[in-house]
Amino acid sequence: MSARLYLEDLFIGQRFRAGPVEVTAEAIKAFAAQFDPQPFHLDENAARDSLFGELVASGWHTAALTMRMLTESAPFAGGVIGTGGRLEWPRPVRSGDRLAVESEILEIVPSRSRPDRGAVKIRTITSNQRGEAVQILTARVIAFARPKP
Amino acid sequence: MSARLYLEDLFIGQRFRAGPVEVTAEAIKAFAAQFDPQPFHLDENAARDSLFGELVASGWHTAALTMRMLTESAPFAGGVIGTGGRLEWPRPVRSGDRLAVESEILEIVPSRSRPDRGAVKIRTITSNQRGEAVQILTARVIAFARPKP
Repeated sequence: MSARLYLEDLFIGQRFRAGPVEVTAEAIKAFAAQFDPQPFHLDENAARDSLFGELVASGWHTAALTMRMLTESAPFAGGVIGTGGRLEWPRPVRSGDRLAVESEILEIVPSRSRPDRGAVKIRTITSNQRGEAVQILTARVIAFARPKP
Repeated sequence: MSARLYLEDLFIGQRFRAGPVEVTAEAIKAFAAQFDPQPFHLDENAARDSLFGELVASGWHTAALTMRMLTESAPFAGGVIGTGGRLEWPRPVRSGDRLAVESEILEIVPSRSRPDRGAVKIRTITSNQRGEAVQILTARVIAFARPKP
């Protein structure tokens, strides 16, 4: 983990990378059993009759793995704290896929009412081992200003 | 689980409800350890020095629990399959909170190119035991047309 980044350390176009992490069939099924128990996330045979035709990860599993990689790669002081954003899942994640993330800061807006912080728009693209995007997240996160001495 | 709903069975204003589910400190920490290992999601003491001042759930944990309740309450034929959407986390989820969801269909757009399906915009509000929204998800999901006999 590198030095903590404060609002003043961030710039538009700044990038953060992490991964790859492999997504196993076991992990897909374990996440699904807990949070998204649908046949195409739970069982290879049942998945054959679905839209996907094979076992695929819950989009929320992809999102959770992306968050893990984001916390490992974007060392914001005070943490990576999101208030919302947009999610796109252009294609599914399959078992054996290796996912990596690349994040880019798109916008930095210092708060007018609270001088100790700002809002940062950051786009995180999660890609598989073929370089295909499986998730595009554009999130608003809080960045804290460096404490005054 | 009620009868499967096809595209023809859906209407604007249709609602689905599920919950409550209680979110324990143990569940908050277990999710965080795997997917969002930040101090304010992992440890009560460390959380005191954070923006939140107490242990709070990862927003992705709230999203995953919401998906679980969505699969229990919206019996779409072929499954609840999202292609993306918008997420807002207006306030955090704390340990002991009991979450419930209410979903409402906002838009139904039959596909021009694929007569076997349509796109449905559905808003799912996740609320705590005080009726305060902790997450607002506006998602696009696929709805399948009833198979022709």
